[in-house]
Formats: sequence, C-alpha cells, structure tokens
Amino acid sequence: MRPTLRPLVARADRRRGMPSSQWAIGVDVGGTKVVTGLIDGDGEVAADQVAQTPHRSTAPRVVEDVIVAAVNALVAAAEADDIDPSIDYATLPIGVGAAGWIDSDRATIRFAPHLNWRDEPLALRLQARLGTAVTVENDANAAAWAEYRYGAARGESRVVMLTLGTGIGGGMVFDGALERGRHGMAGEFGHMTVVPGGRKCECGNWGCWEQYASGPALRREALEALKRGGPDAVPMRAAMRAEGGTVTGEMVTALAAAGDPVATDVVTTVGQWLGGGLANLVAALDPGLIVIGGGVSTAGELLLGPTRRALASHLSGRGHRPVPPVLGASLGPRAGMVGAADLARREALDGAGLR
Amino acid sequence: MRPTLRPLVARADRRRGMPSSQWAIGVDVGGTKVVTGLIDGDGEVAADQVAQTPHRSTAPRVVEDVIVAAVNALVAAAEADDIDPSIDYATLPIGVGAAGWIDSDRATIRFAPHLNWRDEPLALRLQARLGTAVTVENDANAAAWAEYRYGAARGESRVVMLTLGTGIGGGMVFDGALERGRHGMAGEFGHMTVVPGGRKCECGNWGCWEQYASGPALRREALEALKRGGPDAVPMRAAMRAEGGTVTGEMVTALAAAGDPVATDVVTTVGQWLGGGLANLVAALDPGLIVIGGGVSTAGELLLGPTRRALASHLSGRGHRPVPPVLGASLGPRAGMVGAADLARREALDGAGLR
Repeated sequence: MRPTLRPLVARADRRRGMPSSQWAIGVDVGGTKVVTGLIDGDGEVAADQVAQTPHRSTAPRVVEDVIVAAVNALVAAAEADDIDPSIDYATLPIGVGAAGWIDSDRATIRFAPHLNWRDEPLALRLQARLGTAVTVENDANAAAWAEYRYGAARGESRVVMLTLGTGIGGGMVFDGALERGRHGMAGEFGHMTVVPGGRKCECGNWGCWEQYASGPALRREALEALKRGGPDAVPMRAAMRAEGGTVTGEMVTALAAAGDPVATDVVTTVGQWLGGGLANLVAALDPGLIVIGGGVSTAGELLLGPTRRALASHLSGRGHRPVPPVLGASLGPRAGMVGAADLARREALDGAGLR
Repeated sequence: MRPTLRPLVARADRRRGMPSSQWAIGVDVGGTKVVTGLIDGDGEVAADQVAQTPHRSTAPRVVEDVIVAAVNALVAAAEADDIDPSIDYATLPIGVGAAGWIDSDRATIRFAPHLNWRDEPLALRLQARLGTAVTVENDANAAAWAEYRYGAARGESRVVMLTLGTGIGGGMVFDGALERGRHGMAGEFGHMTVVPGGRKCECGNWGCWEQYASGPALRREALEALKRGGPDAVPMRAAMRAEGGTVTGEMVTALAAAGDPVATDVVTTVGQWLGGGLANLVAALDPGLIVIGGGVSTAGELLLGPTRRALASHLSGRGHRPVPPVLGASLGPRAGMVGAADLARREALDGAGLR
C-alpha cells in the first residue's frame, strides 16, 4: 500500500506556485484494483498507488475500507514528501471513478456489475469517513473527460470514448460537458446489440457489442483459432502452454505485436467488430472524434487500423459525410483517475464560485 | 395551391395581441409534398397548405420554385385574411424542414436521399428569392423540437424522437437544445445496423433498422404473411385486390385497427423491431422520454404496446434502471413544419437580442 511518488523535479517549481484549489485526489475503483492519485491542475499525476480490490462477493463496506485506506496513505505520503507544504492534502476534493451505473446525483452507485454495490450511497459514506467533498463518476465517463481535458481529444467539441477491457465502457463529452443521460446511465455502448440472438452476455442479453469487442472477445477468438489448429497456431499454443493452459487478451495482444499471424488475425477480427459497431454510434451521434482506450487498446494500430477500415466501410452515407478520426487514448490506465480528480476539482471550484 | 385557412375565431383575440416577432413561417419539404404554414408564438397553425413535390429526378431549382410559390401564396392569403393587419407577413422568418443531411451551418443540404439535392445552399437561395431570413433544419430534428416545445415531450429534459415513415428519422433534444452533431448529421438512427448482413438498405448497407421498422417494413411483413397464406389472410388479400394488387403501410395499419389478426401480427412484429432497436438507443443515450411520430405511428397502441414490451425485455440492466416511457407524437404530420417555424422564430429573436 506504500504509494509510488513520481519524480517531481521537472515541474516542481510550477507545482509549488499552484494554489491548493487546483489540486484534487482521484480514485479509480476497478473490478480488481483501486488506483489512487494526487492530481494537479494540469492533469499531471504527482503521486499514485495501486491497491487490490477484494473479490466481488465482498461486502461494499470492505471496498469502502480499501478506498479510505488508500486515500489516507496517499495523503500521508504527500504530506511526508515536499511537494508543497502549504497545501492541506487531507481537505482536497476527491473524485471517484467506478465501473457502475451512477445516479444522476453523482453520489449513489445504483448498480456495479463487478462489485457488490446496489444503490450504494458511496459519496456520502466516503465524505463522512474522509471529511472532505467526494463526487462519484462512472469510470468511462471520467476517462473520456480526462482525454478531452488533457489527452487525445483536447480541443474537440464532440467526443465519443470507448474503454475496451472486460467490457466496453463509454463516455461522451459534447460541447464541453459530459453527457450523463437522464438517469446518469448514458454511454452503455457495450450493451447495444450487434448480433440478434448472438453470444450470451453477463447482462442477461444476447449479442451485446462487448461480447465481440473486448478483452474476453480477444480470448474467445483466440480459442476458436486454436481449435481450428494448423501450423500457424503453433506459437500461440506454445504461449498458452507457458501460461499453464490459459489464453488472455494480453497474451494475444503481445503475440500480435510480435508478428504472430494467428494473433494478428484475432486482433483484426475484434477491430472489425469494433469498427462496425462504431458505424452505429456515428450514425446516431455524429461525433467529431472517437477515442479508444482501455487495456485492449494497447494493441494500437493492429487494432485501430481494422477498426477504421470497418467504420469507413459500414458508415451509412459514406462519401456524403466526414468519417470521424479514431484515435488511441493518450493517458493510459490513469485516465479514469485523472478525469475523476479533475471533475471533483471543478465541482469544488464551482461550489466556491472560483471558476 | 390555394391555402386552407383554418378557423381563427377561437383564438383571434389572443393572436391579434401577439407581436409580429412571435410569428414565423414553417415549410416541410418531404419526398412527395411541401407543406407550408403560418405559425404563431404558441406553436398554433394559423394557416397552412399542401403542394406536391416534383419527382426526385427533378432539378433542385424546381423544388425551390415550389417552395417559393407556396410561401408567396401563403403570405398573400394571410394578407387577404384579417388575421392581423399590423403584421408584414412577407418579412417573417422562414424555417424549412427537409429530409436530408443539413450541414452544421443550417443553410446547406449536403445530401437528400429522396430529392435531387447535393451540397445545395438552400437557405441562401431562398433568402435571395424571398427577401427574408431562412434557416434549414433536418425534418426529424424539426419534429422533435416541435414535440419538445408544444407536444408530447413538453417539460422533458432529454428527449429522443423517431419519425417512422419511408425510413426512420431521428431527433434529440437534450437540455433544451437540439443535438445536431459535429457535422449536423446526428440522429440517423434508421441506419444503425440491427441485423448484420440483413435486409438490403437504399443507403448501401445491409440490415439497417429502418428496413425492419418503417412503412416499407409493414408492407414487406404483410407480403410475407400473405405468402404464408391461410384463412386468416383472406381479408388482407381482399384489401390488396381492392387496391389493384398493392399493399401499403396505411392499408396494414387500417386493417389492424379494424381487428384483422394478420395485420395485427404484422404491426406487432414491426413494434418488436422498433422496441428492440430502442433498447440500443436507451443504452447509449439514457433518454427520459421517447416519442414516436411519422405515418406508421398512427397505428397507435397496436404498435406502441409491442414496442414498449420489446424495449423493456431487451433493455440491458433492466430491474436496475428506469425504462423511459414511449409515447406517440401529439402534433401529427405538421410537427416538422411547426418545429421549423419555431426554430426560425427563435433564431430571429436571438439575432435581434429579443429572447
């Protein structure tokens, strides 16, 4: 739980001049880990740490305990460090990004598929325990906001972001504001049906987009390629054996990056499903830019090339309309934490009439 | 081309007190007709008329001529009538709703599938010929705006509207503003793919939603039911013979309304496709209300009942989230014209700093 404090030398002077109101703490609660960071007003991560999330069957209170301990450790480390002695880190606003459906009050987690939260008033509970303002945001919304503010989507007025991991997370920033929807549940792109009666989804439906474009989809396509066999499958089979018989999305991505033809095919297939589904989103939303983040996006151009081609070839009205660029996210796995912190900081500034 | 002036008695006094700045002219340019109306500041139609649109192969200039003649006839009729002698009808702002992709400048029609327009600067041309301000809007956007301002969606902060006719038109009003998209092309819901490799669409793709939920979809499902035959198909077959061997969406809707079991099945099937697709839109957009308009929506509850049931049963996260109500449009076929007029009126008021 000891925080990793990043080198601050390069920008220390600038940071020292930054008022306390420019700082915030960001927390990203995932299915397997909690990432916590101290974020400055330029979206830079001054310090961060990773803690494991208890298994999903654990009581909400246990996850809450992990968050509280992580924030306290981060604050203690920042105070022990010489970042800026004039700042009271314990009172900084806290933004929490979580994979779940956040109510429009941005305080209650209505439903978190990978955690045991149902109508959980997380913001209030954390606020009571940490003694400072806490806002909760859907993790993909927070990542989209971070990419819009500091990353690949800077300067674009209409951004759609997808985070490809265990599923597809979605966020939209239109005209400088997050599109949260009427009940805080917009952007559930992963559960749009792309194949009627298709692959079974954990959500209870069949044929959800995230069954075709995600980490598990990479794994599933790889297993099917292994089943088909042939000499090209030999390296992937060897890699699988080396991992004790398991295939993971990371393994497929690494093999594809090394030029393995079967893995490259698998990543291409997932890219095609991604691009085909994006054509639906573009028809409905007409974004100026699409950003692809999350673990699967580390495949880079191997994924995004086929994605762009599939988008261009499926887009209705092609030839009569611009095709929006599809870019990889630039902030990596810390986007959710950075975005959540920035949203909390802005809310605190708004509340104080400072922005 | 003689305008039908509606009875003005009931609200004449109120209208007489309405300043000139509250009036506007609305024009709805469809694939087969141009509807023109004089609209007051309450969204009421004081006078309107219908003119036929030339065949789609006709030069853009000919459609433009029809619009100019229609507006001039409407103005002449309004001046001849005693609606309000203090108003100079020829200078009222004009809003044009058209089935096409309108550039974000709201002046140029980039592409109109049912008319012969390609990058047509319609607003400038009409402005030059009519001598007053003209704005152009996508017809489904205009209809959505009208339902939001004066119809079924009044008071709702997040509205998705679909107009079901030859295809599916779409409009979104979020937080009191039309969502036009980055290039003015948002809301093309009809060209979201619902069946990969499914029915061929005029847009060049396969499996577009509007191939399954529209007037032509009613017709196609009816023809398939007739092909299957059986005693239940007798009334529909008789109706078809009475129309010279043609089946139309209107015919199916009328038979269903009269209790015909085959027609009812057909409308149910189309409603199910509609509801299934709406589940995708709700996942992505999280609206507070969905309004269904256009010719097909005259089937009323026969369509909307199955639509609601399909939406509820396909919606991801059902049980953990509210299902938005699905309502029929309340302004009927004049919604596009009323919305276009209101948008033009507001733009004129904004320009004059009066709103």
